[in-house]
Amino acid sequence: MNAPATLADLGEAELLRLLTRGWPGGTGGLAVGAGDDCAVLQPGPGERTLLFKTDAVVEGVHFLPAARPGLVGRKALARNLSDLAAMGGEPWAALVTLAAPSATSVQRVRAVYRGLEQLARQHGVLLAGGETVRAPKLMLSVALLGRMPRGVRPVLRGTARAGDELWVTGRLGGSQGGRHLRFEPRLAAGQWLARRRRATAMMDLSDGLGADLPKLAAASGLGYELDETALPGHRGVTLAQIFNDGEDYELLFTARPGTAAKLRRDWPFADLPLTRIGRLTKKALAGSRRAEQRKGYDHFSRR
Amino acid sequence: MNAPATLADLGEAELLRLLTRGWPGGTGGLAVGAGDDCAVLQPGPGERTLLFKTDAVVEGVHFLPAARPGLVGRKALARNLSDLAAMGGEPWAALVTLAAPSATSVQRVRAVYRGLEQLARQHGVLLAGGETVRAPKLMLSVALLGRMPRGVRPVLRGTARAGDELWVTGRLGGSQGGRHLRFEPRLAAGQWLARRRRATAMMDLSDGLGADLPKLAAASGLGYELDETALPGHRGVTLAQIFNDGEDYELLFTARPGTAAKLRRDWPFADLPLTRIGRLTKKALAGSRRAEQRKGYDHFSRR
Repeated sequence: MNAPATLADLGEAELLRLLTRGWPGGTGGLAVGAGDDCAVLQPGPGERTLLFKTDAVVEGVHFLPAARPGLVGRKALARNLSDLAAMGGEPWAALVTLAAPSATSVQRVRAVYRGLEQLARQHGVLLAGGETVRAPKLMLSVALLGRMPRGVRPVLRGTARAGDELWVTGRLGGSQGGRHLRFEPRLAAGQWLARRRRATAMMDLSDGLGADLPKLAAASGLGYELDETALPGHRGVTLAQIFNDGEDYELLFTARPGTAAKLRRDWPFADLPLTRIGRLTKKALAGSRRAEQRKGYDHFSRR
Repeated sequence: MNAPATLADLGEAELLRLLTRGWPGGTGGLAVGAGDDCAVLQPGPGERTLLFKTDAVVEGVHFLPAARPGLVGRKALARNLSDLAAMGGEPWAALVTLAAPSATSVQRVRAVYRGLEQLARQHGVLLAGGETVRAPKLMLSVALLGRMPRGVRPVLRGTARAGDELWVTGRLGGSQGGRHLRFEPRLAAGQWLARRRRATAMMDLSDGLGADLPKLAAASGLGYELDETALPGHRGVTLAQIFNDGEDYELLFTARPGTAAKLRRDWPFADLPLTRIGRLTKKALAGSRRAEQRKGYDHFSRR
């Protein structure tokens, strides 16, 4: 390849790996850096563990120009809350950065913020500030600070063992029908799993099961077996949609083998389905390769 | 006005006021919300006060496309550090969001990150993660978490009294010659002023003295008198440049009257000029109005 490589040649995951290689980490209270759902900061003895996350939504990538502005603002915060949920954290404070063309109507921008504020109130997130900058397209970037309850450890991605069973909350697929703007971040479920130590590893499903499950398994150096007949799809979706649509924002987690009956019995969220979909294995099996071929979503390579 | 109002009609300050009006604040540990240099979070008894800030740089607004990529990355972090300095905080951890077109070269983006990393190492900032998204122009948004030393209160903008004297660090004006990319955030000076309780109010000069001084005075409900002959300009700059160029990233602070001699004697930063430039007054004087007419920088109205 003679032309200089562009971001599109690399794709998002490879780019992030390249950019964050050699970053200082592992000291000064940084328990978990780039690569998990949130960064984990341990301030000091007696102080609560902090979770730190940023996420941006861009017009034309994460929402269409015609999307209801209030739902755009809601989504920008909800995606961050979903990442926090995937570690079992409690939201605390957020900062909001708006990038927009000068010709954007004030009414539209206010509606974006009203949607974000409504979700913030619902989950007790303090909106602590932010800024506005001029840019060619509307973009909303949210920085979120969360905390773990005292004595509760965040659930990481890479702490599962071979034999652990795979579980998923809710239903998957078909998010582009509108759910990608209206999903409920699974904060209560994530917190419950962390407090009760039921999850051995966890992440949220943002890029689709086909892209995210291989990431979860790889984070523990494991493969997986998937029971495709068990996958909980939304009404009318195909298996391919369950794998590839993305933006489900459900929790994918692992639990020790033999705990399924107790987990189902104790699960306190009557309206939120809980489904066992497979298990982690010592090495990659046929099922692993199969799901890896299903790509999920990548911002830079899908042009 | 019949056409719907756009962001350009409002300008940045008015827009932020409008957007953050009615935001939840003042409870749950939020000591200072939107409107100061950083948000201030008080976790609980015995826990250190946190400072939380985001700031973005956009191609064509904060840097030209031809700017050295390493300096672009440096600036994105340095601006945040300058805000932290203005409260006397110590940097802790940062998250980096890159928005860029798919056709951006990997080499350019890596150089941007290298510049940011270098400054992070210099100031002990942990780079804890972030993300990349596709967007029409290169933009770098940094979320920074800082801490106050135990027992030290952050210096706010609005806590000065009438009669307090106005001080500025360093020299002002002419930043577009290159200093807007290479400035040193005044972390050590800000921390010294906070620890020793020498500053009664403080902010960093990002939009120019002509725009920022009225903000500082107004935050305490005061006016000001300025000794224009005392203003420490960089070599060859005019008074208008001192007021309007912006991007000085020096500290503007107030100190109790009668402390000037002691402050000058104790000031430990031999290479950093310290200049008394005026005082705060009970009500706006002629000098106040004069500086208010000098606009400083506004992202949306300068089209």
